[in-house]
Amino acid sequence: MNNFEFKNPTKIIFGKDTIDKLANEIPDKAKILLLYGGGSIKQNGIYDQVKKGLTNFDIVEFGGIPANPEYAILMEALKVIKDEKVTFILAVGGGSVIDGAKFLSPAAIYEGETPWDILSKNIRTEKGMPFGTVLTLPATGSEMNSGAVITRKETKEKLSMGGPGLFPQFSILDPQVITSIPKRQLANGLTDAFTHVLEQYMTYPDGAILQDRFAESILQTIIEVAPKVLKDPTDYKAAANFMWSCTMALNGMIQKGVPTDWAVHAMGHELTALFGIDHARTLAIVAPSHYKFNFEAKKEKLAQYGERVWNLTEGNTDAKAHAAIEKTVVFFHELGIDTKLSDYTKEYEGTAEKIAQRFTDRGWLGLGEHQTLSPDKVEEILKMSY
Amino acid sequence: MNNFEFKNPTKIIFGKDTIDKLANEIPDKAKILLLYGGGSIKQNGIYDQVKKGLTNFDIVEFGGIPANPEYAILMEALKVIKDEKVTFILAVGGGSVIDGAKFLSPAAIYEGETPWDILSKNIRTEKGMPFGTVLTLPATGSEMNSGAVITRKETKEKLSMGGPGLFPQFSILDPQVITSIPKRQLANGLTDAFTHVLEQYMTYPDGAILQDRFAESILQTIIEVAPKVLKDPTDYKAAANFMWSCTMALNGMIQKGVPTDWAVHAMGHELTALFGIDHARTLAIVAPSHYKFNFEAKKEKLAQYGERVWNLTEGNTDAKAHAAIEKTVVFFHELGIDTKLSDYTKEYEGTAEKIAQRFTDRGWLGLGEHQTLSPDKVEEILKMSY
Repeated sequence: MNNFEFKNPTKIIFGKDTIDKLANEIPDKAKILLLYGGGSIKQNGIYDQVKKGLTNFDIVEFGGIPANPEYAILMEALKVIKDEKVTFILAVGGGSVIDGAKFLSPAAIYEGETPWDILSKNIRTEKGMPFGTVLTLPATGSEMNSGAVITRKETKEKLSMGGPGLFPQFSILDPQVITSIPKRQLANGLTDAFTHVLEQYMTYPDGAILQDRFAESILQTIIEVAPKVLKDPTDYKAAANFMWSCTMALNGMIQKGVPTDWAVHAMGHELTALFGIDHARTLAIVAPSHYKFNFEAKKEKLAQYGERVWNLTEGNTDAKAHAAIEKTVVFFHELGIDTKLSDYTKEYEGTAEKIAQRFTDRGWLGLGEHQTLSPDKVEEILKMSY
Repeated sequence: MNNFEFKNPTKIIFGKDTIDKLANEIPDKAKILLLYGGGSIKQNGIYDQVKKGLTNFDIVEFGGIPANPEYAILMEALKVIKDEKVTFILAVGGGSVIDGAKFLSPAAIYEGETPWDILSKNIRTEKGMPFGTVLTLPATGSEMNSGAVITRKETKEKLSMGGPGLFPQFSILDPQVITSIPKRQLANGLTDAFTHVLEQYMTYPDGAILQDRFAESILQTIIEVAPKVLKDPTDYKAAANFMWSCTMALNGMIQKGVPTDWAVHAMGHELTALFGIDHARTLAIVAPSHYKFNFEAKKEKLAQYGERVWNLTEGNTDAKAHAAIEKTVVFFHELGIDTKLSDYTKEYEGTAEKIAQRFTDRGWLGLGEHQTLSPDKVEEILKMSY
């Protein structure tokens, strides 16, 4: 087990009708920016629930944060924050809206030339404008972590930011929101959370027995509830376990003391940037090829995953590890998630070379838990994903 | 799954030689009360490590906090805090020393008649004097939670306290401290943490799939590392997983959204108060009888525990549940922990009646997850524990 530090101060308010508790969590006399996405919260009643809870506050609204939170749009929101003297940001949405709030939080008090610096110069956020969230789409874990990913269309860039100041002050998680989420997005959320766990687990044995078992617990839970969530989103038990699993998958806990990979995300982000494929689906495209390509380095953990999560008992380590990859692919397919780039676009030729070149240009010469995944290897993995 | 709120802001600094990081965590110019126990930290080198890390601070020391932190002694420490104008409390020790610091934290700023009020009147601590910990004995989880138990010899009382102000600001966990802990205390720590998990898990199925799996993960990890820790405390992998398991066993995470029992602790505390038996050992005395007596109410979870944690595959629910209790008893015995009151004292006759009467006197008429364990049932359970 590696040395680690762990601190996660976000307050989680979880359960049925918890949106009613919103007003208690926001400072008195706050001027609130209510940040949301494409407007689905106005159809599903969440917008009304939130507004009802905030009758005593002065609110200015900003909707239209897109699926990959776009810098240009966030800069418009930033202008509203400054013009309206906002003091508290409330993100009502999924990971994209929450990530948008995470950018706005330090941007609101940034005194440098342009807030783009925070992303391009990798400035850690120690402190920002306070913000909280009402989660409407379980998937990214952004509601209980201190990271965010922001997209800039202009330059086709997707960059990440982080720092202890980026933990939400609170996040309200009412699993009943799941009833109004389209099946496609539920499948994305399940795939996203599942892959988050794999990125922190599918490396090599490092003596972190407890962290491994926690990671396996989340994977087992997602596998158990996934068909139920997709079949009947009003199944509260399944919805609650799905929602809590997504949060625990990326709130820092399972990554402490262990090696992590994240190469699947690095490659997946490029597929979203190039083709607009949903984030979660890009992970399902890349992960199987990644595990096959790095089989020797990862086979012990793949076999452990096969044994404990998929109950594989036959064969030696290699056989179990191969079977575990196959199980994962079948699981994605059962969620309705395709796992080949050619399922999403006919114009995949040249993609691997293009992404490898981008990594080279950025100086990303060694991804993965061993920092050995060079651009030529990235190219091979992506070709296997066609 | 029940609704819940979860917030745990303690910063954990975990790993080899992390005591070196102590000075970074304490506010500049703090006047520190260094609180410790019987002086073992002076033999094992931890005292020197701590002092070396704090050369730039003004420190006043208070040693001698006993195994069940005693009110009268803590009142002496409180006098030192006031006389010396202490501003920060540093607990270097196990759960007793940390619990002592947790009492002193609000007591230092309490303005009522007597700090005993905090315990006797159940005053929740919202804010106290800041404190941090260096953990020297994994067991209680006090290093990452907001509860404490204080003993008052004068009245043979053992009362608990809590509140969001009682989370340590930081806790330093260096698994290397385990090398100098006597085997008896290691066995106690393993038993204590194991039973903490059982208290939050061994109730009835409540749809909390993820929480169940997390609880089972901790139990499996403790079972795996226990013989290694006892055989060779220098086995760092085993020590690190033991230490982190103890923390995760009682930092709030696995109890959120699920019913909890805690009747084993309520009964066990009385055995410590009456006979001075080590806390952990009282839990091992009470738990098996408790599970046998409440078999019908708990058998589904007992069977699930048997299947998942002890890999029991034979028989129906009842058979697996019974076998799971047996496995637990054998596990305690393998740790060198006796599981009958008569193993500890020859003067056990009348104990059950005495404790049942105490519970009646206190108005504790319904313990356990269903609040149905009345004093007459407590009496029966304790008789089964003779």
